[in-house]
Formats: sequence, structure tokens, C-alpha cells
Amino acid sequence: MEREHIVKQYDTELNEIREKLLEMGGKVEMMISNSVKALVDRDSELADQTIILDHEINHLEVDTDERCLEVLARWQPTARDLRFITLALKIVTDLERIGDQCVSIATRVKELNEEPPLKPYIDLPRLAEASSIMVKEALDAFVRGDEQLAMKVCNDDQFVDDLNIQIQRELLTFMMEDPSTITRALKLNYISKYLERIADHSTNVAEMVIFMVKGKDIRHTSAPQSTLEGQ
Amino acid sequence: MEREHIVKQYDTELNEIREKLLEMGGKVEMMISNSVKALVDRDSELADQTIILDHEINHLEVDTDERCLEVLARWQPTARDLRFITLALKIVTDLERIGDQCVSIATRVKELNEEPPLKPYIDLPRLAEASSIMVKEALDAFVRGDEQLAMKVCNDDQFVDDLNIQIQRELLTFMMEDPSTITRALKLNYISKYLERIADHSTNVAEMVIFMVKGKDIRHTSAPQSTLEGQ
Repeated sequence: MEREHIVKQYDTELNEIREKLLEMGGKVEMMISNSVKALVDRDSELADQTIILDHEINHLEVDTDERCLEVLARWQPTARDLRFITLALKIVTDLERIGDQCVSIATRVKELNEEPPLKPYIDLPRLAEASSIMVKEALDAFVRGDEQLAMKVCNDDQFVDDLNIQIQRELLTFMMEDPSTITRALKLNYISKYLERIADHSTNVAEMVIFMVKGKDIRHTSAPQSTLEGQ
Repeated sequence: MEREHIVKQYDTELNEIREKLLEMGGKVEMMISNSVKALVDRDSELADQTIILDHEINHLEVDTDERCLEVLARWQPTARDLRFITLALKIVTDLERIGDQCVSIATRVKELNEEPPLKPYIDLPRLAEASSIMVKEALDAFVRGDEQLAMKVCNDDQFVDDLNIQIQRELLTFMMEDPSTITRALKLNYISKYLERIADHSTNVAEMVIFMVKGKDIRHTSAPQSTLEGQ
């Protein structure tokens, strides 16, 4: 019975780490969505809320790191659980950096909202949605140990890269045709790039999840996609 | 005698992790320096060498991660050593991402080298040098547990941020005055931003080192600099 209690306590602590990561994930998804909604709706107050929400992400980062260290020190897990905890430590950092990207987006949005809109925004919300889904799926793949879902995230990164390139090309045309659009186009360019980086963070997480599940490292294979598909 | 042997083996393994991180650090410093030298000297072969060197960084990342996991599983370190290893796991990721930034720089440099130079490059090499020094000092602070040096890195980030803004402002002037410079100026803009991100990674490492040394988290205090100075 004593042993049972110990095992239960250990499981509870591992689950709390999972919960914390999902909580961080939910908050950064909201930050991604709101930061771009603040652009489309020209709502600088929503941009401010996004910036404030980042404080919660930062607290969660510190808290989750501490819980991971406590589990490592107290339970000295090995094998799969050890990989789980060390991966959680890395994912926390990615989530925190995604929060930082959202703050950068919100800051640019506030500047853009002070000027007349350059164009209707169609592709940036699509890019934001795709990046946000990647964050969610990468985290789901982690907590469920779902290798297939992690592979999907890796593959979806190409869509985001292509859309980012398309947006940048369109903005370049604006700048070339009318230099008075340059400062606004540059800011939109940055927002697109920040969203693309959010997708990159998700892809990094997904690659690490595949590593955890398979115990095999697919990071830095010369042709990541084909290697994934071939396995 | 047996116990002495065990302690020695443990120290050796911790030292190997230190050495691996320093090796990665040395290589990314070379990547930063060479990627920008490739721009100034219009040397696309050097840019290619930078891209190739990233493969070594990627191998070192996987190898160092594995060593950290082995030490955790075999020795189950606690307290300060546990913080050291978990921090090493996070720093490895930062170093790998710095390598990625250098590849992005080198790729842009190769494109720029196909076109006439926009201007003599004075500030970008300064930015590269400052960022590279920050990488080196953040790692030195980590292996020595040197809190003062880590604080210096955090403070130096302001210089890099200011120089990046100055470079971006100058490039904006080029674009406004002559739209035919836009594509080249955008690429230089990205290079400046990549270098600034390298400095950010170093600052993240330095903040984590202060956390390790003090056992207190200075990340995400509302006024990082003054908090640092006040302690």
C-alpha cells in the first residue's frame, strides 16, 4: 500500500508537469490568435492584453522548470520518464520564446494601428492560424507520446514557410511600387516572420517528441521529411 | 579507493559535458565571424563553409544531449549538479539555434554576393563581433559559474539592440531614397536581425547561468537590469 501511494504521488507530479505545459500552450495559442486579431480589427487594447498575458507565460516557465527539477531530484526517473522530463524542460523554453514572438507581433501591431491600413489582411490570419495549430498539435503529440501527430507537425511547417514567402513577396511589390508604404510593409514583413518562427518552434518540439517516442534522433538528418516518411 | 574512482569518473563525465559545450561554442563563434567575413570579402565559398560547419553543430547537439541524459540516469545528481546538467540541456539548444541563425546569414550573404554591393559594411561586422563575444562570455560564465560575467553579458545586450536599430534605420533611408536598393537592403536588414537574435540567445544563457549560481530566477523580472544591479 505504501508503494502504491508512492507510485501514485510520482504519477501525480508527472501529470502536473503535463498540465502546466498544456496550460502554457493554451495561453500562447491565445496570444497568437489575439495578436493577429488586434491587427485585423485595429484593436490596440487587445494588443496590450497580449503583451500582459506574456507575464503569465513567464511565471509558468519558471514554475514548470522548478517542478521538473524537483521530480528529477526526488524520484530520479530513468529511461522513458527521464526523456519525458528533460524534453519538458526544453519545450518550456520553446513555449516561452513563442510568447516573446507574440509580444513582438503585438508591439508592431500597435505601431501599425497608428497608421492607415496598408491592405486588407487575408494571409497573415491564415499564417497565424496554421502556426497556432502547429503549437497545439506539437504539445498534444508530446503529452500523448503520439509520433504520427508529431510527424504531421513537421510536415505542416512547409505550408507555413511557403505562405510566409508569398506574403513577403507581396509586401516587396508594395514597397517597390510605392516607397511611402515601406515602413508599414517592413512591419508586416516582421509579423509574418515572427509567425513563421512560431511554427519553427513547434517543429522543433515535434522533432524532439519523435526522438522521445522512438528513442531515436531525427533532428538533423540530411533529408528530414523523407527520413520521416521512410520509417 | 573504489569510491575515489567513482567520484573521479563522475567528475570526468561532467567535465566532458563542459568540454562539449565549449567545443560547440567555439564552432558557432567561428560561424558568426565567417558568415559576416563572407559578406565583407564577398567570399561565397566561405559562406558555404559556414553552412557545412552547421552539420558539426548539429551532431554535437545530439551527442551532448545524450551525455547529459546518461549522467542523469547513471549518477542521479542533485542540487547544484542537477541544475548544471539541466542548464546544459537548455544551453545546447540555444547554441544549435545560433548555428541556424548563422546558416540563415550565410544564405543571405550568398544571394547578396550575386549583386553589386549596396554600401561598405562597417556596422554589421561590429554587430557580429559584439554578438560573438556575448556567446563566448555567456559560455565562459556557465562553465566557471561566474555570475559577474553573466551579468556583463545581460548588460551588453543593450549595445547590440541599439546598433541593430541604427543599422535598420540606415537601411530604411536607402530604401526610401532609391527603391532599386530594396531587395538588397531587406537582406541586410535580416542579417542584422539574425545577429541581434544571436545576442538574445546569449542573454538567455547568461540569465539562466545567474539562476544556476544564485539558485534564484532573474528571468522575467519586470526590470531585469536594475534587478541585476541591485542584488
